[in-house]
Amino acid sequence: MNIKINSNFDQLSENYLFSEINKRVAKYKEYNPDADIIKLGIGDVTLPLGKNVIEALINASNEMGKKETFRGYPPEYGYSFLKEAILKYYKRFHVDLDLNSVFISDGAKSDLGNIVDIFGDNPIYIPNPVYPVYLDSNLMSGRDIYYMVGSEKNNFLPLPNDHMKESSIIYLCSPNNPTGSAYNYDELKLWVDFARKKGSLIIYDSAYEAFISSSNYPHSIYEIEGSKECAIEVCSFSKQAGFTGLRCGFTIIPLELSSDNHSIHKLWTRRQATKFNGVSYPVQRAAEAALSLDGFHECIENINYYMENAKMLSSFFDEKKIYYTGGKNSPYIWFKCPLGMKSWEFFDYLLTNANVVGTPGIGFGEEGEGYFRITSFNTHERTKEAIERLKKVL
Amino acid sequence: MNIKINSNFDQLSENYLFSEINKRVAKYKEYNPDADIIKLGIGDVTLPLGKNVIEALINASNEMGKKETFRGYPPEYGYSFLKEAILKYYKRFHVDLDLNSVFISDGAKSDLGNIVDIFGDNPIYIPNPVYPVYLDSNLMSGRDIYYMVGSEKNNFLPLPNDHMKESSIIYLCSPNNPTGSAYNYDELKLWVDFARKKGSLIIYDSAYEAFISSSNYPHSIYEIEGSKECAIEVCSFSKQAGFTGLRCGFTIIPLELSSDNHSIHKLWTRRQATKFNGVSYPVQRAAEAALSLDGFHECIENINYYMENAKMLSSFFDEKKIYYTGGKNSPYIWFKCPLGMKSWEFFDYLLTNANVVGTPGIGFGEEGEGYFRITSFNTHERTKEAIERLKKVL
Repeated sequence: MNIKINSNFDQLSENYLFSEINKRVAKYKEYNPDADIIKLGIGDVTLPLGKNVIEALINASNEMGKKETFRGYPPEYGYSFLKEAILKYYKRFHVDLDLNSVFISDGAKSDLGNIVDIFGDNPIYIPNPVYPVYLDSNLMSGRDIYYMVGSEKNNFLPLPNDHMKESSIIYLCSPNNPTGSAYNYDELKLWVDFARKKGSLIIYDSAYEAFISSSNYPHSIYEIEGSKECAIEVCSFSKQAGFTGLRCGFTIIPLELSSDNHSIHKLWTRRQATKFNGVSYPVQRAAEAALSLDGFHECIENINYYMENAKMLSSFFDEKKIYYTGGKNSPYIWFKCPLGMKSWEFFDYLLTNANVVGTPGIGFGEEGEGYFRITSFNTHERTKEAIERLKKVL
Repeated sequence: MNIKINSNFDQLSENYLFSEINKRVAKYKEYNPDADIIKLGIGDVTLPLGKNVIEALINASNEMGKKETFRGYPPEYGYSFLKEAILKYYKRFHVDLDLNSVFISDGAKSDLGNIVDIFGDNPIYIPNPVYPVYLDSNLMSGRDIYYMVGSEKNNFLPLPNDHMKESSIIYLCSPNNPTGSAYNYDELKLWVDFARKKGSLIIYDSAYEAFISSSNYPHSIYEIEGSKECAIEVCSFSKQAGFTGLRCGFTIIPLELSSDNHSIHKLWTRRQATKFNGVSYPVQRAAEAALSLDGFHECIENINYYMENAKMLSSFFDEKKIYYTGGKNSPYIWFKCPLGMKSWEFFDYLLTNANVVGTPGIGFGEEGEGYFRITSFNTHERTKEAIERLKKVL
């Protein structure tokens, strides 16, 4: 063939983080077949779905097998029953949303990747380190990308500064993956005020909001006044309700959000109607159940389980007086490698000396060099055992 | 805000086809509240899913509720169990596929819309009339679009001609939505040979392949020699297995497909890894069941039911000697409006005089003006009744 490809793809670096981890672990196991390796690299939930969610999934599945209750194409933007449940969920944070501002999707990653479709060529601001989708999806469309540096100085929470360009798109992730840092009300207000002043748009990834337990941290950017004029929020049932394997998320685009004489809401509506056909009906019923009183309770039980692990881990780092972020309103703990080690160097050190696997910080951006992420998604028993081993080598 | 939007969206025409239909029907009902309206406009399946599919859906749902069998993130490109079932399905057409050439998705519409991401600025050839996603997704990326005209002369099956530009992307849909026309082996071979000669790529939408019953029509473009060097195939469980409400499809990108020194397969791999997170596990198990021996049998039963309707309808048009396409290897029948009526004129005529609702051909492109689509997705009883009424007014 002789057709032109999208040459922006050449700008993408090979994303070899997790395959490299697997390769190194496999090699270690080859020489140490009896090693009992503990995985604290997991970025995925491990606890099964609650009874209420499973029941809803099964009931809806049965409906699909009967003529009277069979459903064909779902609405492209989601069933109202689920959007209403989300509206009700947001009322807990004292946020009022319009039903039509909620778009149900098959996951936050899809929306975060696809949202670039509706925008022109704006300067893009991305935290570093951060979840790689923001960077890669903007590289694919050839955008000018600027980094907002996370470091010990700002506790890996970049704040606005006046050198930033006007009229740009700013990605924020709070609680952050991988650093576990979260913006409090005051900090997020700085961002909202800044975006409004500069005519910029914030794309706010709140996938980990359900892990927030401290009262001075917002769960949604719409808790901040004025944010409906400058922010899109992308959220997910993956971490909140353990839906990584079921696939459901949602994006909120306030009706009042507009730019360049266009309603952003209308653009996304058109994008989704053209390139998406809605989320599986049983999955939407399951998501509705996860937001019900009993379902939500079950979700919180799972989150509490993970957060007990996070607490054990962060207590350990507190005792050791090792610098870290996260672990309080996030399942992630991000800590500084000891003795000035680089991320991969420490990975090998930890694997060899403690048989514990984590994720090198450099995998999330250059500013992650010298840091390391571990997660709270393993069991209590294994997490405890990992801490015992960490004690000996840190 | 003051950010730039994607101004290509301004080129899109409002897609008001189905909302306009609903509006006119609602208005008619307002003045004729007792009218018994028969809907032959439905482009969606109506029969429930088979027992085997439901059983798989429920079993997989139960797995998600138990610690030992819970599954988190699915592989971005689909579970091997489903890809293997698809490989086996393609063997029925004597097509051998590589496991890695199959990408499982949440539906053909998503893939057909998103595939534009990986290509540069090539001339785009789109049939007219046709399913609107090809046009709209390319308008959104600002491509130069050329139409391949369908008409009575070519039985709404455009064939290659030497005026077409080299190195272009050509969309084909067979059996076609909305015209029901399908390419036979010889015709599709003309396209494959032409694409190879011109260095062009064919994007082949085979969403309706399961409706093919005649032996001289290919189910897959890969039945044609040389097609793996020039074609991507996009298919779906929606129509084949009634999955419109469950959401599952797949795209095949042969490993050997390359252009501009890039593997197309690698580009799509990277695109999906960045902007997609895989399909719901229970849905993938359901799709696997739909391809099993018993599951497939149930799917065929449903298709036969629809095709009996199609047969009744096409026999009627045969008797009346009205020009039409489709109805043989497709659930769609596309016929010429009587007395030189325009599509919307005939819509109103049919609604008023027969209380039958169909879809105006103009809704699928300018070349559809003066034609009309009806479908076989209603029940036998209602389809029969509709034919009785058509007899009186046509």
